[in-house]
Amino acid sequence: METDRRGRPRLVESRRPGRSARDEILDAAAELFTTVGYAATSTRRIAESVGIRQASLYHHFAAKDDILDALLAGTVDASLELATDLLGEGGPAAPRLHTLVVADTTQLCGGSWNLGTLYLLPDLRVERFAAFHRRRDELRSHYRTLSDAVIAEHDGPAGAEDLPFRLVEAVINRRADDGDCPPDYPWTTAEAALRVLGCAKGFARMRAQTANRLQARRT
Amino acid sequence: METDRRGRPRLVESRRPGRSARDEILDAAAELFTTVGYAATSTRRIAESVGIRQASLYHHFAAKDDILDALLAGTVDASLELATDLLGEGGPAAPRLHTLVVADTTQLCGGSWNLGTLYLLPDLRVERFAAFHRRRDELRSHYRTLSDAVIAEHDGPAGAEDLPFRLVEAVINRRADDGDCPPDYPWTTAEAALRVLGCAKGFARMRAQTANRLQARRT
Repeated sequence: METDRRGRPRLVESRRPGRSARDEILDAAAELFTTVGYAATSTRRIAESVGIRQASLYHHFAAKDDILDALLAGTVDASLELATDLLGEGGPAAPRLHTLVVADTTQLCGGSWNLGTLYLLPDLRVERFAAFHRRRDELRSHYRTLSDAVIAEHDGPAGAEDLPFRLVEAVINRRADDGDCPPDYPWTTAEAALRVLGCAKGFARMRAQTANRLQARRT
Repeated sequence: METDRRGRPRLVESRRPGRSARDEILDAAAELFTTVGYAATSTRRIAESVGIRQASLYHHFAAKDDILDALLAGTVDASLELATDLLGEGGPAAPRLHTLVVADTTQLCGGSWNLGTLYLLPDLRVERFAAFHRRRDELRSHYRTLSDAVIAEHDGPAGAEDLPFRLVEAVINRRADDGDCPPDYPWTTAEAALRVLGCAKGFARMRAQTANRLQARRT
């Protein structure tokens, strides 16, 4: 193993994306959890994959489940913040749901590793991940609130209010099957999310609104 | 441990649903794989859970991955057969896709254990499960063929042809979150699958057709 101990205490040159050792640990763990499996991955192996000592890893994360918790939080936090903002806005619900679906699907399509594949792990059904589950439930609840409003606006089908959230998370399975998603997948998914609620037109205008809204948030 | 060795060689009385030892092994493995995890479950533990000796288990399945393969096959085989039959029928595609979605969603909602949660396991990405992946890909391809035809019939949105398959598999996540699905979920999902393809009416007639078609297959 190549060693270079000048500067910070590393066994090998950095070979991970990430601006900090913490980010590199998260990236290595995300790769191992999604390709080897969570149960089968040890913190020793994560440290080796980053090229740091296990003791250095424990400086950032006390245990493997803390790493998983940080990765899971990264899949819901920005979308939950956006959903909360959108719920606070007035006006018709359809364009707001459109924006949420585009942003959330873009996030789930992006990133180096398909972290959503970890959602269904039995390992997550413990108290340690209660905070993550609460936040994901809150996001789901915001989807339902907006979806119920779209159904009411468009005289849509009863019982469909959970489907937009499901369509968004289905991107996880699409990525798992095909390796990635087509570039327009977030827009296709947003339109589909509205169609299942009975809203089948006005998409050109919503696309423009969503593009503007997300552009404004980035700047 | 209670022992009763009269009759067949069992350590305890049968306590699993299933008409045969093989079915009981499948049921026990399905429970353990979905609640404890595939990697964390040994064949010894499966045998203990059934109340048989490990040697008896090996009489039915040579290895743990054979059990998983049999469970996975049970989640696609009937739907693939139905999809093949429906593709061979003539007439408009929408009612045929409606039938496929209702039957497939009903199957995924049913059963004691949410086996679809195993689809995303890294453990499945090995040659051993190539046959399962081929059959699931074939089912997905049949969904796309019917979906493309519905889009053509209804001048629906381009790029949506993979979404009905995704909506059906989303039932796995719904079950994982809520423990079960509402009784009308297969019908809600079928209507949603058609709406995303641009077909937004004629559902009452399709419901009646689907009910008849599935009834005819059962008898």
